[in-house]
Amino acid sequence: METVEEHRSHGGVQGVYRHASSSTGTEMIFSVFVPEHAEGARLPVLWFLSGLTCTHANVTEKGEYRAACAEHGVIFVAPDTSPRGEDVPDHEAYDFGQGAGFYVDATQAPWAKHFRMRNYVEQELPALLAEHFPVDMDRQGITGHSMGGHGALTVGLRNPDRFRSVSAFSPIVSPLNCPWGEKALGGYLGTDREAWREYDACALIEDGARIDGLLVDQGTGDNFLEDQLKTELLVQACESAGIPGEIRMQPGYDHSYYFISTFLAEHVAWHAERLKR
Amino acid sequence: METVEEHRSHGGVQGVYRHASSSTGTEMIFSVFVPEHAEGARLPVLWFLSGLTCTHANVTEKGEYRAACAEHGVIFVAPDTSPRGEDVPDHEAYDFGQGAGFYVDATQAPWAKHFRMRNYVEQELPALLAEHFPVDMDRQGITGHSMGGHGALTVGLRNPDRFRSVSAFSPIVSPLNCPWGEKALGGYLGTDREAWREYDACALIEDGARIDGLLVDQGTGDNFLEDQLKTELLVQACESAGIPGEIRMQPGYDHSYYFISTFLAEHVAWHAERLKR
Repeated sequence: METVEEHRSHGGVQGVYRHASSSTGTEMIFSVFVPEHAEGARLPVLWFLSGLTCTHANVTEKGEYRAACAEHGVIFVAPDTSPRGEDVPDHEAYDFGQGAGFYVDATQAPWAKHFRMRNYVEQELPALLAEHFPVDMDRQGITGHSMGGHGALTVGLRNPDRFRSVSAFSPIVSPLNCPWGEKALGGYLGTDREAWREYDACALIEDGARIDGLLVDQGTGDNFLEDQLKTELLVQACESAGIPGEIRMQPGYDHSYYFISTFLAEHVAWHAERLKR
Repeated sequence: METVEEHRSHGGVQGVYRHASSSTGTEMIFSVFVPEHAEGARLPVLWFLSGLTCTHANVTEKGEYRAACAEHGVIFVAPDTSPRGEDVPDHEAYDFGQGAGFYVDATQAPWAKHFRMRNYVEQELPALLAEHFPVDMDRQGITGHSMGGHGALTVGLRNPDRFRSVSAFSPIVSPLNCPWGEKALGGYLGTDREAWREYDACALIEDGARIDGLLVDQGTGDNFLEDQLKTELLVQACESAGIPGEIRMQPGYDHSYYFISTFLAEHVAWHAERLKR
């Protein structure tokens, strides 16, 4: 692992790091904020999975999470959204290929070789983090935005023993039921829609996955709400399953980081409360 | 004035606006954050002047000021750092020409026609703001970063009746005494260094300018501290003049927005206290 840059910020250190990933067969870049802490202390970790077209940099620069992470003593990790590079297959659209990994392990050519973001986020990066940062891996929470909200919900629902807390911003709640999801999961996983269900938050809940709670913020002024995000499907899935989801429709907010940065500090506090020893 | 974009954020509206400037003879873009407020209310204003290479966008995206502005009821304005466009003279270096207006009214060819950022920031943009936003122009404060810290100090020192509060991040405190300043003021104003003094915070203080107080944050890990910023010259000027300057050396912080965003909320609160009715 190589340090790309480190900056003192909010009393801690905001870093950007690069490593050769065995999951994707490429170099991968991610960012970590480590707040000030007592020597030898191990801190809880909040993962942030980003949305379409993003890298680690978007939330790192625009997320406004560091003050809250410093206050609550939480490490914040932001991975990239896909493998990248000239040798990596891509697609001309913004919503498929590089920048649009959807946090799946692809099974279809030509994507299967590199697009293994599920393995990267669930296995490889946690191990790297545990090796190099003062993290307490028994205290992990996960959140994300849009495609990354889908990622946070599905990773969280599949791994309830690992993530004590799950939240999301404007998540794609059911890739089985929206154009972004149909295109991406069809492309990465093939036409058998049964294989998509482990990558669909609503389907996972229908199929029995359970978590103790859930915090979701969704702007009512979000252009993608009706066709792509379909928050009401998650509301219904949580109600049917008895999952106490706090799903908040935020009046007038759009899909941008101006929305995320408004509520991310609240999410950090919400996770911190659930990640106490 | 035309609205480029508006986003709901932290309970208010973060907007970006474009207008034809008579000062620069170009279109100019600026951003304004207006917090939630009672109908008919007029709010105090904090100006933020940005540094070399920046536009309005850098602080708007990375400054982390909106939560504090919402809390204290302060409007936040971020102008561009120079005129821009194919018809505007430029220089190959990052520290002169477009993106590097230094908040002066240039007198030398070919810069004098467009590079009139002093007039823009002191006269034209305040009038536009008063016309279109719920601002109380009797309650203005000013801050800025690096070249924009120089701008905030010099605009504030020249206009003590208009700006009740002046602060800065990593300011160029004396263009007369650093390479950035010698290049820019020499280029825009010519070789008569007497003409530079109204654009030099330390010289303005030596020449009798006074303000009630001053808050400056400067990182000790800032690569530009020794050769370009020279904070100690401002410390000496304030001491000699009896200006109560709170000039804080912040250990380990660099010149980036990771530094600015750490302390900008504190500056907003400091200005808000001084901008009360």
